[in-house]
Amino acid sequence: MGLQPLKVALLGCGVVGTEVARLLTRHADELRSRVGAPLELVGIAVRRPDRRRDLDVDSGLFTTDGHALVQQADIVIEVIGGIEPARTLILEAMANGASVVTANKALLAEDGPTLYEAADRQGVDLYFEAAVAGAIPLVRPVRESLAGDKVRRVLGIVNGTTNYVLDQMDTTGAGFDEAVQQAQALGYAEADPTADVEGFDAAAKAAILASLAFHTRVAVGDVHREGITEVTAADVAAAKAAGCVVKLLAICERSGSGDDEAVSVRVHPAMLDRSHPLAGVRGAYNAVFIDAEAAGSLMFYGQGAGGQPTASAVLGDVVAVARHRVAGGHGPGESSYAELPMLPMGAVRTRYHVRLDVADVPGVLAKIAAVFAEHEVSIETVRQTLIPTEDMDDDTHAGASSRAALVVVTHSAPDAALAATVSALEKLDVVDAVASVLRVEGE
Amino acid sequence: MGLQPLKVALLGCGVVGTEVARLLTRHADELRSRVGAPLELVGIAVRRPDRRRDLDVDSGLFTTDGHALVQQADIVIEVIGGIEPARTLILEAMANGASVVTANKALLAEDGPTLYEAADRQGVDLYFEAAVAGAIPLVRPVRESLAGDKVRRVLGIVNGTTNYVLDQMDTTGAGFDEAVQQAQALGYAEADPTADVEGFDAAAKAAILASLAFHTRVAVGDVHREGITEVTAADVAAAKAAGCVVKLLAICERSGSGDDEAVSVRVHPAMLDRSHPLAGVRGAYNAVFIDAEAAGSLMFYGQGAGGQPTASAVLGDVVAVARHRVAGGHGPGESSYAELPMLPMGAVRTRYHVRLDVADVPGVLAKIAAVFAEHEVSIETVRQTLIPTEDMDDDTHAGASSRAALVVVTHSAPDAALAATVSALEKLDVVDAVASVLRVEGE
Repeated sequence: MGLQPLKVALLGCGVVGTEVARLLTRHADELRSRVGAPLELVGIAVRRPDRRRDLDVDSGLFTTDGHALVQQADIVIEVIGGIEPARTLILEAMANGASVVTANKALLAEDGPTLYEAADRQGVDLYFEAAVAGAIPLVRPVRESLAGDKVRRVLGIVNGTTNYVLDQMDTTGAGFDEAVQQAQALGYAEADPTADVEGFDAAAKAAILASLAFHTRVAVGDVHREGITEVTAADVAAAKAAGCVVKLLAICERSGSGDDEAVSVRVHPAMLDRSHPLAGVRGAYNAVFIDAEAAGSLMFYGQGAGGQPTASAVLGDVVAVARHRVAGGHGPGESSYAELPMLPMGAVRTRYHVRLDVADVPGVLAKIAAVFAEHEVSIETVRQTLIPTEDMDDDTHAGASSRAALVVVTHSAPDAALAATVSALEKLDVVDAVASVLRVEGE
Repeated sequence: MGLQPLKVALLGCGVVGTEVARLLTRHADELRSRVGAPLELVGIAVRRPDRRRDLDVDSGLFTTDGHALVQQADIVIEVIGGIEPARTLILEAMANGASVVTANKALLAEDGPTLYEAADRQGVDLYFEAAVAGAIPLVRPVRESLAGDKVRRVLGIVNGTTNYVLDQMDTTGAGFDEAVQQAQALGYAEADPTADVEGFDAAAKAAILASLAFHTRVAVGDVHREGITEVTAADVAAAKAAGCVVKLLAICERSGSGDDEAVSVRVHPAMLDRSHPLAGVRGAYNAVFIDAEAAGSLMFYGQGAGGQPTASAVLGDVVAVARHRVAGGHGPGESSYAELPMLPMGAVRTRYHVRLDVADVPGVLAKIAAVFAEHEVSIETVRQTLIPTEDMDDDTHAGASSRAALVVVTHSAPDAALAATVSALEKLDVVDAVASVLRVEGE
């Protein structure tokens, strides 16, 4: 244990950064044992060094000059978030030979290849366990434990805010707006919840997960994204009636084989059977379900956000890269040797749960079934229920003698075929409205 | 990619070994990409080289001389199981500078320190992801991802056979013997199920998990072990009535602080609230729930046994140690710097669900409550139900005018205090029998 200390620079001191600094200080002795050398915090780059912080560290550590700080460090921890100045500082750190630990999903999803290539060129580590699903060890298992296996599919609940909202809607019958207000009151949703409820956060994580799982570069722009703002209390109730829950899922799939092998990555609300392990993931928890060829089904569950959980993941990475520096060498880098093509969303196959408001007249079902058949979408089940007049949503139906709700569940079909089916259904005179379309996942 | 191949020796070619050889062959190109050098299978040590195997490899690879084989290898995969000759071969391999990947939980739980020290002395890797919970990446997350955190508790379902049996009892109301027969018929239990149902297999895994989680050497002899053979259909029904399931749990806890800090490791059946994430683990699946100081609650779920899942975990380790050889250096070894003392089982605190058959006469509850109070075991709830005569188990009660079943759930108390309470209860004249005592976990 007579080794020189490793110099650690911290970029950012918000919720996560504060916890990282606290853990580095509080567990200094244990960290030294695990690493084989002491970790010395040499500076914390912040915008406002004079701001009062609930953190017991030497105030002389704070600096506004991140560029100078990264020049002094063996290990740089980036928890600023966003694209700039995070990207420039990380690149400068690696150019100077430092290893980097980051929790920055936005940057990795936007411009990961630039960072991966720089790390590779410099022979340094770039670790980012905290960027996907917070404290849940996910990057390391996918990158290392499954390295001898072939991942077929990743299904994840990777955004705690939307899971909290959908769980509230499922449990209490609340509508979307009401559930979002509850989430905001409890601190699970931000004042502007757009990044979460529109699926942007989940899409960034999906891109990182797909890149890791399929050894193929997937950028956030490759991800098909739909948020949960259109999910209604009626959708959740219909799912419940079918023995399902509605979850916002990040779905990464490898399909086809040989020259037809391709990858699809999408984020959207979906129905999931209540017996699926992901269906039981409640509140703001995250979980990721992985199907691998040899390993079979695996699931990883835990807190996907929060200062302490995220800081735990950052520290795990810090210990790993510090050990590599003590031992010499570095860990496995990013790998993109497979470089599979992206399947367009229209070609992605899944099942659909379609709710229609229709006229209750003879021959309706035949007309509707014909539209599905025309587009080669095979129907698995149809259920029809009369709508009592008082349950109708708006005035357009008032006075209509008799209407019905029709629920069609399809077999697996390409997304484009289903979209064309829906367009054609909307033009049918017996169809008042296509009330909702939800994909059914987890088979 | 112009690197020399890494020579891989396989010891054992049973269910797991066959799958390992198959994956090494089938995924040769991908493995080369991930490792940065080809992996060359140089031999397979078996007892009967002429045995017919469903495996497409050069028959010249088979040998009975494991000792000669390990001298030729850079990486040795040990899937023989048991103590000898596995231990000697592993030690010879490491003495010769080879890295070792093993799935041998019995050996690690029995004599891990000898192996860890040899690996450390030789500066080689000893990896064993497959030894605990099969394909579930668990060793790597605990050893690496949580390295900057402090694990407080590990609660695991680490034996698929017993989970299948208890799940059947819960679902169908079957008794223990019937459920074991079903498990045997389906291949989930061996003809002699002792190692599983008596908790020996789970105890070996608990020792390995506790060693990793607490950086303290825990041998299988340190584990308090109770199997599930005494669990009755009535126990499972009583748990159900209380909103719980009965699971065989491996429980590793760190308790106290400062000089009083200690570790306890135990395997026994326990009641778990149905809302606990582990309660939903069905059939032969395994799952491990971890509470860490910063990361909070984490769960890992998947298949705990089987040739393919175990082979997937072995291959993940092979890729890791192969990468280390290509890059130079090795991964984190075993660490036992904490060396916490073991807490004796009598001092372990938990809650208890105690079922008593009692006489339904005035003052019974007062007498029973007095016994609990005398031993400083605090009662949380008491529920009394009259036993209809036809429900009685045996003839000793026949003709008794009126009996009752009393269920006492306690607050947390030391195990020794509860044991003394039960002894005293058995001597009370109003108590016919202490029908069952189950620990209640997962708070």
